[in-house]
Amino acid sequence: MIELRSDTFTLPTDKMMESIQAVELGDNVYDEDPMTQRLEEEVARKLGKEAAILMPSGTMANLASILAHCPRGSKVIVGDESDIYIYEAAGASVCGGIMYEPVPTQLDGRLAISDMEKAFPIEPEDPQFALPSLICIENTHNRMGGRVLPLSYLQEVRTFAEMKGVSVHMDGARLFHASVALGIEASEIVSYADSVQFCLSKGLSAPIGSIVAGTKEFVQKVYRLRKMLGGGMRQTGIIAAPGLVAIQHMIDRLNDDHANALRLAKGLSEIPGIDIRVEDVETNIVFFRIDHPRHTWQTFVQAAREHGLHIGELGHGRIRAVTHSGVQTADIDQALLIIRKLMS
Amino acid sequence: MIELRSDTFTLPTDKMMESIQAVELGDNVYDEDPMTQRLEEEVARKLGKEAAILMPSGTMANLASILAHCPRGSKVIVGDESDIYIYEAAGASVCGGIMYEPVPTQLDGRLAISDMEKAFPIEPEDPQFALPSLICIENTHNRMGGRVLPLSYLQEVRTFAEMKGVSVHMDGARLFHASVALGIEASEIVSYADSVQFCLSKGLSAPIGSIVAGTKEFVQKVYRLRKMLGGGMRQTGIIAAPGLVAIQHMIDRLNDDHANALRLAKGLSEIPGIDIRVEDVETNIVFFRIDHPRHTWQTFVQAAREHGLHIGELGHGRIRAVTHSGVQTADIDQALLIIRKLMS
Amino acid sequence: MIELRSDTFTLPTDKMMESIQAVELGDNVYDEDPMTQRLEEEVARKLGKEAAILMPSGTMANLASILAHCPRGSKVIVGDESDIYIYEAAGASVCGGIMYEPVPTQLDGRLAISDMEKAFPIEPEDPQFALPSLICIENTHNRMGGRVLPLSYLQEVRTFAEMKGVSVHMDGARLFHASVALGIEASEIVSYADSVQFCLSKGLSAPIGSIVAGTKEFVQKVYRLRKMLGGGMRQTGIIAAPGLVAIQHMIDRLNDDHANALRLAKGLSEIPGIDIRVEDVETNIVFFRIDHPRHTWQTFVQAAREHGLHIGELGHGRIRAVTHSGVQTADIDQALLIIRKLMS
Amino acid sequence: MIELRSDTFTLPTDKMMESIQAVELGDNVYDEDPMTQRLEEEVARKLGKEAAILMPSGTMANLASILAHCPRGSKVIVGDESDIYIYEAAGASVCGGIMYEPVPTQLDGRLAISDMEKAFPIEPEDPQFALPSLICIENTHNRMGGRVLPLSYLQEVRTFAEMKGVSVHMDGARLFHASVALGIEASEIVSYADSVQFCLSKGLSAPIGSIVAGTKEFVQKVYRLRKMLGGGMRQTGIIAAPGLVAIQHMIDRLNDDHANALRLAKGLSEIPGIDIRVEDVETNIVFFRIDHPRHTWQTFVQAAREHGLHIGELGHGRIRAVTHSGVQTADIDQALLIIRKLMS
Repeated sequence: MIELRSDTFTLPTDKMMESIQAVELGDNVYDEDPMTQRLEEEVARKLGKEAAILMPSGTMANLASILAHCPRGSKVIVGDESDIYIYEAAGASVCGGIMYEPVPTQLDGRLAISDMEKAFPIEPEDPQFALPSLICIENTHNRMGGRVLPLSYLQEVRTFAEMKGVSVHMDGARLFHASVALGIEASEIVSYADSVQFCLSKGLSAPIGSIVAGTKEFVQKVYRLRKMLGGGMRQTGIIAAPGLVAIQHMIDRLNDDHANALRLAKGLSEIPGIDIRVEDVETNIVFFRIDHPRHTWQTFVQAAREHGLHIGELGHGRIRAVTHSGVQTADIDQALLIIRKLMS
Repeated sequence: MIELRSDTFTLPTDKMMESIQAVELGDNVYDEDPMTQRLEEEVARKLGKEAAILMPSGTMANLASILAHCPRGSKVIVGDESDIYIYEAAGASVCGGIMYEPVPTQLDGRLAISDMEKAFPIEPEDPQFALPSLICIENTHNRMGGRVLPLSYLQEVRTFAEMKGVSVHMDGARLFHASVALGIEASEIVSYADSVQFCLSKGLSAPIGSIVAGTKEFVQKVYRLRKMLGGGMRQTGIIAAPGLVAIQHMIDRLNDDHANALRLAKGLSEIPGIDIRVEDVETNIVFFRIDHPRHTWQTFVQAAREHGLHIGELGHGRIRAVTHSGVQTADIDQALLIIRKLMS
Repeated sequence: MIELRSDTFTLPTDKMMESIQAVELGDNVYDEDPMTQRLEEEVARKLGKEAAILMPSGTMANLASILAHCPRGSKVIVGDESDIYIYEAAGASVCGGIMYEPVPTQLDGRLAISDMEKAFPIEPEDPQFALPSLICIENTHNRMGGRVLPLSYLQEVRTFAEMKGVSVHMDGARLFHASVALGIEASEIVSYADSVQFCLSKGLSAPIGSIVAGTKEFVQKVYRLRKMLGGGMRQTGIIAAPGLVAIQHMIDRLNDDHANALRLAKGLSEIPGIDIRVEDVETNIVFFRIDHPRHTWQTFVQAAREHGLHIGELGHGRIRAVTHSGVQTADIDQALLIIRKLMS
Repeated sequence: MIELRSDTFTLPTDKMMESIQAVELGDNVYDEDPMTQRLEEEVARKLGKEAAILMPSGTMANLASILAHCPRGSKVIVGDESDIYIYEAAGASVCGGIMYEPVPTQLDGRLAISDMEKAFPIEPEDPQFALPSLICIENTHNRMGGRVLPLSYLQEVRTFAEMKGVSVHMDGARLFHASVALGIEASEIVSYADSVQFCLSKGLSAPIGSIVAGTKEFVQKVYRLRKMLGGGMRQTGIIAAPGLVAIQHMIDRLNDDHANALRLAKGLSEIPGIDIRVEDVETNIVFFRIDHPRHTWQTFVQAAREHGLHIGELGHGRIRAVTHSGVQTADIDQALLIIRKLMS
């Protein structure tokens, strides 16, 4: 089975599994798990942030970050195509009394400054208006096809946020894909954001976990919120150890995933009935649509599965294929064969 | 001073003031204020709903209605130009853990069914997605210029909501303007909604209060929520008595306000530099823009005030003028004179 | 009918009704109701606070005050017999994500400092613990029989709160009863609290309304919260005008209510089968129990009503009688006659 | 170092570590982790419940259970010495708008029915009162010294809850200690509760995780809430595999922990200056106080640590010692030696 539905299906490497066996464990609720502390310190250093903290999931990483930034009754500005807005079950409203204000997402994943501007009332002292307290950006951007936000845009957002007196949180679930695609250190990318989260469990292939980084004070708040939300776990070394392997060994190889994604996109663009924009494929995510006399996307996805290819839909009838460490170049070629056959 | 900023500036009539003097009072927290009960019964009958309840404001009327309809963690579908979304301070997220999902508002105040459809996930069992529980429509629609929702559209919304298994709440702050404009009983208009709120204190000219109507069970829930939110008041007869006068005597005369609004709109359309669509003026709200070499909307509004005309801005640089019982036809003509002078 | 169930049944005086007729009205949502502003200024001055704000009810006054003081996830320390804990429908948890921490209420309405101490964790940095942010005291104390908190105790609470870094809110629904009973200005009493609310609609006999007072910054927060909760009302002059009369003319006469309460208590103490502590009656509330071969409190209250005397139960089977402006000394004597008869 | 602070310090057994190596992994967010499913099914069967679900922590297990049972604005009845009330950071108020109503905890961990009765208002239709929706009991009871709730009491709670129309949730963090102590299947113990959570990571020695069990419909709700709270994790097989070993192999040996706890308690009771009630030690938790001329509990705990014995304080100056799989009988004897030395 070729698994292209998501890079969340990545399995831990042998090195990761060995790291679990070797790890010295402690109770992390008592701050006594040495590997977790080491991972957090290493990540903080790598991202150029004061502190970092391990979370059970990207959803909690984003939720706790939003709660730490936003007082009750304020607004969090999010993209209308962002994972935070669409896939995180309204957590900030439920747990934080925070209002989501979605603004249009540009095709390349950016939120236009002029659109964000509209979320700020002209008369902030008028009590009718909830006031923004945070801007969330997503980098790379999942639903816009793995697009990378340019540094110049990050600078614009930073300047705008400072002018408005709000914070910036980067949902960097696939932060290192952006780093590798730009050939720029992750620390530079996240320097424009007050806080960032990234996932150990997506492209980096660790089994579980995400990490939030920011100032010491901010991470301290996230630490309290993690406990409240139920993300304080015990012998987290079994998560942190493969996480550390992921950080150390799984970043550079994302280049392979990007090459595979491009190979897939180019191949798809040569198949009649496939609608795809090759130039939009910047990282490991490929979106396309099909136009076929007998297939809807539903039957197409189903048929692909029967031929050994797992792909999925991701909103608006678009089909998504994601490359990752479990997919080789040969798999891409095989996937193209399957799709070509289905479309003929 | 000609007051066109809002119909919330309406002052109680003599009859209303007399009704206050004459009213027999009781403690409404103990359900012992007879006039409040009478008002609630009369409104329920007039709207063809099982029950009705007096609220201190339209904001609380909408908030308590949303809380009564929507479980924690669900989504309320609102128009992106609706008062509920823009002017009510995120109350549903704060007090209810509810996510607002704004959909585009059409120029005539409708929310396209196809846009609302997108708020419903294809896979509702997927826990990533918050699920819609309520659709809010606004009738007449304030920020779209007092537009009246056609009955055929209300029927469409009803059918859609039933198919989706969600409720419909009508923010009818200016419900009776719609009724008068259509020449149709309010009870028919609200028959398409599970719940409705309207304001005694806007065009109907009572000093304070709004009313929520719906099924007995629903109003019972709103009653509990009203107490929790702090809207349970004591000798509410002093509010209910003028409210009853409003219901009995102030509805038919809304025709005059509509005629005045149209007169204003037509007059404005003849002034060079005024951008207005006369055909959009269906009730008592007139929107226009100015295009003038020396005036911005800010200086224009300021200058008008200095000439004895109060108007306001209502988003996106549009100027709003609202007719009501405190504005006579002569005032409209005078307002036109002032504006003509300012624009020359 | 002699109404002793509550002083919330008080009806407005003639002077109050006249004040409504005479008042100049404006839209208070636009801060243009002159009488409301005058009332707020006068109250602020009278209480020695920077600012004050009119609210629709004591419940909203307390709720908005708690929300203004307490961040999400913190604890508000309340008495287990306080109105805030028992009668306000969990509003702070619902609307604020705040945890109530009830501590035992002493017989005289005080919360022991040592009990409050326990609500503060020894290790505040441990994220398991929610942290207190506010202490609420009630003065006079309703469910403890209208008891007045001594100034020395208020000083102790103040000192304790400052040491702990939390604020103090006084639920002074019957604040002026405490002032009159102690013969001390209300401003001195509330000087120990960061914020205070009192009711115009209880002993002071106005039909509707409560007022919150505190620093300018605090009142500004309450102002925003009032809008969010739906307490922003329009022509509030019709509430504020009788409220101003209440402040000016209805405070000194509370002495009569206290004298009547004492007269009632003494009379009751002479009736066999009545269990009452006369020395506990400090203001206008009288609690007693009955011990009768044929009457439960339920049948007793019912029988009293049939004889023209309205009294109520207030928890734990205690009967409550409250004196107020609608009760004359002759009514007290009549009430005693009725009760004596029922108990014989 | 002898570790008696908590059984959360337990380290995974060799068998557990091997199970991690051997496990087949999948993405549990897509419901494709086979070992997690197997664990959930096995637990459901073992507990006689329709369904079970893996959670990252006991805190989230309790929080999601409470949210699933309790509508916004209702009350959850908890013991004032319960972990849910004291150690879970107000989560139900923050994330659920739920009010905690603490009732006194008896010395044996029970909540008296008569105390719980007081949380139910006599007039439930009165909107002043928040209404209870859930009773939480803790079994075994941590802060009361590992006490086991008798089946007869569980039956009483069940009957009471059904009469009142509320649900019962059992915080069974140490459920299997109760089962082993009573010699009764866990399924019988939890049959009195609508839902239960227990920890894989405490006495059962797995590194991470807790499990919630209940009806299918209830677990479906918890599943949605888990995602919202951020507890949906990816390759959870690395948690589930040792969890399954824990269920299969670590329950019976809890008898050893109980024997060790009793041994410790008996030994302590023979040391002058130690205040302990041996008859209260029913499972693996031992509480005692010290009365020593030179030691406070703080210096005592510190001195013990310097002698190689880790113990902790758990409220009110009580010292807690917890036995578990990492503590042998010889360790107990050594701990007694150390304490005897310190106390002499």
